[in-house]
Amino acid sequence: MTEQDFPPEEFAERLERAQRAMRNVQIDALLLTTEADVRYFTGFRTLFWQSPTRPWFLIVPANDRPIAIIPEIGAALMAATWVDDIRSWSSPHATDDGIGMLADALRPFSRVGMPMGRESSLRMPLIDLKRLESALDTVELLDCTPLMRDLRVVKSEREIAILRAICGIASDAFDHAPDLFHIGQPLSEAFRAFRIDLLRCGADDVPYLVGGAGQGGYPDVISPPGPTPLLAGDVLMLDTGATLQGYHCDFDRNYAFDHADDAARAAYRTLHRATDAALAIARPGVTCAELHAAMQAVIGQDTGDVGRYGHGLGMQLTEHPSIIGFDQTVMQPGMVMTLEPSMQIAEGRIMAHEENMVIRDGAPELLSRRASPELPIIGGGA
Amino acid sequence: MTEQDFPPEEFAERLERAQRAMRNVQIDALLLTTEADVRYFTGFRTLFWQSPTRPWFLIVPANDRPIAIIPEIGAALMAATWVDDIRSWSSPHATDDGIGMLADALRPFSRVGMPMGRESSLRMPLIDLKRLESALDTVELLDCTPLMRDLRVVKSEREIAILRAICGIASDAFDHAPDLFHIGQPLSEAFRAFRIDLLRCGADDVPYLVGGAGQGGYPDVISPPGPTPLLAGDVLMLDTGATLQGYHCDFDRNYAFDHADDAARAAYRTLHRATDAALAIARPGVTCAELHAAMQAVIGQDTGDVGRYGHGLGMQLTEHPSIIGFDQTVMQPGMVMTLEPSMQIAEGRIMAHEENMVIRDGAPELLSRRASPELPIIGGGA
Repeated sequence: MTEQDFPPEEFAERLERAQRAMRNVQIDALLLTTEADVRYFTGFRTLFWQSPTRPWFLIVPANDRPIAIIPEIGAALMAATWVDDIRSWSSPHATDDGIGMLADALRPFSRVGMPMGRESSLRMPLIDLKRLESALDTVELLDCTPLMRDLRVVKSEREIAILRAICGIASDAFDHAPDLFHIGQPLSEAFRAFRIDLLRCGADDVPYLVGGAGQGGYPDVISPPGPTPLLAGDVLMLDTGATLQGYHCDFDRNYAFDHADDAARAAYRTLHRATDAALAIARPGVTCAELHAAMQAVIGQDTGDVGRYGHGLGMQLTEHPSIIGFDQTVMQPGMVMTLEPSMQIAEGRIMAHEENMVIRDGAPELLSRRASPELPIIGGGA
Repeated sequence: MTEQDFPPEEFAERLERAQRAMRNVQIDALLLTTEADVRYFTGFRTLFWQSPTRPWFLIVPANDRPIAIIPEIGAALMAATWVDDIRSWSSPHATDDGIGMLADALRPFSRVGMPMGRESSLRMPLIDLKRLESALDTVELLDCTPLMRDLRVVKSEREIAILRAICGIASDAFDHAPDLFHIGQPLSEAFRAFRIDLLRCGADDVPYLVGGAGQGGYPDVISPPGPTPLLAGDVLMLDTGATLQGYHCDFDRNYAFDHADDAARAAYRTLHRATDAALAIARPGVTCAELHAAMQAVIGQDTGDVGRYGHGLGMQLTEHPSIIGFDQTVMQPGMVMTLEPSMQIAEGRIMAHEENMVIRDGAPELLSRRASPELPIIGGGA
């Protein structure tokens, strides 16, 4: 039997919270199709979601335990979770990839919630959704995005313990930077060395690693690495979403090689102070918009291309909410957030800075080990 | 400027093939929302798709070059591709995450294809799709799944060169098995050692690594590893989808520790012979159903929980078609396929075997280094 990431109580608590919320909005059941939403209620964790071939469905009734309607290939793994109602079919199927079975299971309900709003996607063919709707003429499909995001945004202490561990692992790997990175190293090899070190430090996986390097800054924050060697005067940024038991860290670090120009050092200090300003007010009751304003005041620019100064963090690399002017989401204890101020140094040259924290009663708990207040310099001339 | 995986000619050829196919079915434009589909026509490659926050859109007109409608955070990276019509907005957005801009760009067209069928998903909120449909009362959205899968199923020699390289890298790593795995090693540490070795051998990333271990076989083929140590008599299976420049290998290897029981050795030989039987007939003109039947005849069981004996391979870990009885897809030169026979050894104990190949005129080209004909034994008693 596969080891579970959480005891059954964790899922019983999630289900109870969900069912209370569902009754408040008169939703009889949730229909979920994505990895994170299915895992949230089941603990079903596998990289097999990488294969787009087969759909996976979870029904969460307002008055009963979850029903997994999944391909046979996943039935044994699902049976190792706390879920006991597992219905499976041989998939891929010539004519009906689970839709008939799903329709039968949904027929007793009248108002069924599906995530249809911001940050959601539909992990099943649109044609199959239309087929399902035709088969269910007495069932109404409604958006349940607010309900799902309010549930998932507050993490349990069990979830936070995993997030703390993966942030600690990534902090350890970043501490090895002077041994991992050097002038003359192709950027792709710097990435490779860092990935390997993250795994050695205890990460299960490194699904996200992006960054950039350039003289006194870098052009963007989402690029894969190329073969260009690191040069004296370059600033290297690595931003990683490494995982442990399916939970992500998401933070970055900047390093200059041999020396840094004044503009890069000043930008680094500004972003560090902006993060301090957000940490100083990150308390229950404060809104995302207020966190955004606190950082903006230090930076003195708008958010630029990145568009926001941080976001929620958990099973997904980025989760609701966004630290942006229009997001009025109120901080609550147990919310895990990134603070990610960024700024333009010059045309085509930016810098980003990121930390991960848990909102607590009182000061937030930092999950990432705080970056040094001055831009760190690696290596250099004799 | 970011290095590109392919020269512009590669994309010009893809576009030309697509436009010919679109004119055949009177589709004026394609609307694409997923990583693989967008990358196919643009070369835009970033792990940033891991963040579900922002939608990304690509329009491929039947008579013009592609139009990228994307968040500002990706505009610089997209500008480094061959795409020149890039329209971007500040995302996340309070009220309109690109839908107005997308509607304006689609209005000149009347029949717009979107992937809606088998293996497809919708990487944008359903509510935004409905908004788009309302804004486009003279535009019809149609399923273009057959068109997209016929385009992507045949790989160019440039794509095959990358696939050959990543399969070679994974073959190298599997060759190191006797040095990487040992009795007493927790399964999670075996996975970690293998991930690190794949990276050292040259993989960019290891987005997929699953497997299992158990006495004479394993319970399934999609589980993450737990802390249970490898024992004498265990069969360990590792199945990896490592990547290079965004292209996957996908094959597995089995190893017994100290000794293997007769049933495990016999199952291994059967699966090896089943793969040989498929390789012997894998020629242009042969169907998936025929490949399936050739393997079935050797195995003498049905496909069981896995449901198929292989699939297409490329930018995604699994792609159209499926090697299964109902799939009448005809092999063509340039198709890259996995052969993945599996069988039940006893209740709760299975074995799987997998190779990667390119269909050629004449015999197929094996991309993975062929597994040894007998179940390899690692370590063992003095």
